Amino acid sequence: MLIIGAGLCGSLLALRLGQRGYNVTVYEMRPDLRKTDISAGRSINLAFSDRGNKAMKLVGIEDKVKDLCIPMNGRMIHDKEGNTFLSNYSGRDYEYINSISRGDLNALLLDEAEKHENVTIHFNKKCKSVDFENTTALFQDYHTKNEFIEDADCIIATDGAGSALRKSYYLGKKFLFSFSQDYLTHGYKELSILPTENGGYKTYKNALHIWPRGDFMVIALPNLDGSFTVTLFLSYDEGEYNFNNLTTPEIVTEFFQKEFPDALELMPNLIEDFFENPTAPLGTVKCSPWHYKGNTLLMGDSAHAIVPFYGQGMNASFEDVVEFDKVLNQNLDNWEATFETYEKNRKKDTDAIADLAIDNFHEMKDHVGQAIFQEKRKIEMMLEKEFPEDYSSKYSLVTFNEDIGYREAMLKGRAQDKAILNMLADGIISISDDPKDILDKVKTETEAILEDDRVAKFGPS
Amino acid sequence: MLIIGAGLCGSLLALRLGQRGYNVTVYEMRPDLRKTDISAGRSINLAFSDRGNKAMKLVGIEDKVKDLCIPMNGRMIHDKEGNTFLSNYSGRDYEYINSISRGDLNALLLDEAEKHENVTIHFNKKCKSVDFENTTALFQDYHTKNEFIEDADCIIATDGAGSALRKSYYLGKKFLFSFSQDYLTHGYKELSILPTENGGYKTYKNALHIWPRGDFMVIALPNLDGSFTVTLFLSYDEGEYNFNNLTTPEIVTEFFQKEFPDALELMPNLIEDFFENPTAPLGTVKCSPWHYKGNTLLMGDSAHAIVPFYGQGMNASFEDVVEFDKVLNQNLDNWEATFETYEKNRKKDTDAIADLAIDNFHEMKDHVGQAIFQEKRKIEMMLEKEFPEDYSSKYSLVTFNEDIGYREAMLKGRAQDKAILNMLADGIISISDDPKDILDKVKTETEAILEDDRVAKFGPS
Repeated sequence: MLIIGAGLCGSLLALRLGQRGYNVTVYEMRPDLRKTDISAGRSINLAFSDRGNKAMKLVGIEDKVKDLCIPMNGRMIHDKEGNTFLSNYSGRDYEYINSISRGDLNALLLDEAEKHENVTIHFNKKCKSVDFENTTALFQDYHTKNEFIEDADCIIATDGAGSALRKSYYLGKKFLFSFSQDYLTHGYKELSILPTENGGYKTYKNALHIWPRGDFMVIALPNLDGSFTVTLFLSYDEGEYNFNNLTTPEIVTEFFQKEFPDALELMPNLIEDFFENPTAPLGTVKCSPWHYKGNTLLMGDSAHAIVPFYGQGMNASFEDVVEFDKVLNQNLDNWEATFETYEKNRKKDTDAIADLAIDNFHEMKDHVGQAIFQEKRKIEMMLEKEFPEDYSSKYSLVTFNEDIGYREAMLKGRAQDKAILNMLADGIISISDDPKDILDKVKTETEAILEDDRVAKFGPS
Repeated sequence: MLIIGAGLCGSLLALRLGQRGYNVTVYEMRPDLRKTDISAGRSINLAFSDRGNKAMKLVGIEDKVKDLCIPMNGRMIHDKEGNTFLSNYSGRDYEYINSISRGDLNALLLDEAEKHENVTIHFNKKCKSVDFENTTALFQDYHTKNEFIEDADCIIATDGAGSALRKSYYLGKKFLFSFSQDYLTHGYKELSILPTENGGYKTYKNALHIWPRGDFMVIALPNLDGSFTVTLFLSYDEGEYNFNNLTTPEIVTEFFQKEFPDALELMPNLIEDFFENPTAPLGTVKCSPWHYKGNTLLMGDSAHAIVPFYGQGMNASFEDVVEFDKVLNQNLDNWEATFETYEKNRKKDTDAIADLAIDNFHEMKDHVGQAIFQEKRKIEMMLEKEFPEDYSSKYSLVTFNEDIGYREAMLKGRAQDKAILNMLADGIISISDDPKDILDKVKTETEAILEDDRVAKFGPS
């Protein structure tokens, strides 16, 4: 079994397949991140939540991962005047997300995978293409530049959004390959809030900070060392300020002074970060089929890259491994049947989280600042607190209900949002009503919306 | 001005730009279809309707095109027992679509374009790539195999779903290019019903015939010579019969005997056609941006290839030229502003017709055979007949209301469908009710659906 890519998904997959007794060889294009700092310009922390944790439980390292986590209980919203308020992710105290270092988590997974004698990981070997008819892959050594071909029974590519296997599928034209890459009008740039002199946090530690400004936003997630990784999401070329015209220290400072004064105060290093770090695009990749016969399979970002706004990119890739493991438990006849079943089960869910992540882009930069959406959020927090067993918001369904798929979470969550927003707009419910009365109305209206959609699509059942 | 491709869109564009006084050079990869028969395996007739006709009016050849048209007033549905019924496209007698020969129409457009001294068309010159930074295109001569480069002020590619310019955008990686190709699980194959010995029609001439079978279907459109072009839409690999297993004359005959007995009777030439003609895929292509600066622009199928189920592929490409002409009338400062304005106006509509065409795939092969969808259709025919000024079905909005865009037609049409289907399912309306009462209920419910969607997306207005 050959795995291309030892990032988060590839190293977890290697670990799990190692545990199952497969002989696994992994090739990674980058150097070993346990020995070299290669974080430059990449997002150095990520949101880790229940779907990801389900995978950690599967491989038995939940406790070790917990040590790397900083809980974030909600969104800390910062307005233009510097006022803040905390909007919890859930009305249930035990539901929260975590900030985790990509590098630390990847290192842990590599360590755990390498404990298995049947797992070998090679670094500095870049995959250039895959011959999926013959199940061979062409690699190049970073140092010697020598190229070599590896033959395998079966190849799984976890080589990320720019996957070499996916490119080979696309360029090969040997079968009908549906494929999309969709870029947002916005790009992103990473900045930082450094720790205090004593190594403390300059702002509230246990939240995901958001400065929503309608057409753009800044967010910040805490790191274990007291710093925050800050990300600016901004249009390339629209609006008064955009990445194309933020070309001088003066205009960057002016922009932050005007839009994010309280953040600017925490970031004396802004100008240095801004001009040293790259501006990167935000893209969604979908494709199908993920596999070619029983020879090759795409998994993780190589099959479904998504934008970061739901904090689910890593979690979705980890859940891929859990879902793949479930199919392995079925002991199907051959790899082709295994890959086909896995894609059939899984693709509807990764399509859904891709769409949800784009929805959340608009929610985070815009809706969180609007009265009716805030009122909806209040009602949902109240329902989750009062009826913890009976109500979960869309955010909770996606993030904390790891036993239902993303697609089901999307359909139900969108219907609930539509029900609450319309009943608020029509004065049918208000936050001061009896909670049980609100719950019943929301449930009835949600069901009616789902049923109307079903009838419009399929006729009456 | 250089145009790549002299198909339906390219020859219309050349004609219109010729009329406007531009110096236009067109390069087409195929031989001149007025001198050679090159129809083999391609769809030889197409649905022509009001949006296409709007373009013919613009260039002043409406009457000439009319001579090529065979009106089709509705769908003639054939069930498995050979029973037929006609389902009109509209409750208004003067609204119908037409069957037209692709070759005849293309020849007319080429003739008209070449009447202009400032228009030159070269055949047998295939575009291999476009250097969009330098506004040059690389061509190869079909006969001599010689390659040559053409320099232009501005290049418009109307070179279809496999566009060389679009491929250059994708492979060039000079800017963020959003792109998707999506294949249906089904392919298609063209067959034919030949004329009677006297050159007459073997079945009813003035309809689009459909044999809907849930998971697959056959359709037939009339030609001027008494024949029908027949198309089988069928899965590649799913179901009892599919393109992968229809490999012998016996099994093909068995399939038609079982599923399409009345069609089989009209097609003694079935086996010959089936094994001579290729099986082709059904794909949707979307992309953005369509233009690079003021240098190059994609138009027609090269920008937005769609599946054929709404009969709008050619009409959408013709409407592109009308919309482009409108932007030219604004006399903007430069080509970049012109291209940008054109894409901004147009893309939402071509995205919508792409989605509508996929909806109609399911409607044609499946819904037209189901009771509730037939009941909806009856109600809509009644409303259009009784209130010709006040009601248009989704089909009519898309096909016969050329003054509203595809996107508006889609949003309103889908809401109407949802309103009628749900009111039928809930017993709120029935075909025997007072027509004015039905109209009022449908209008009120449609508005409520649209408003609920608006509130869910943007909050209350």
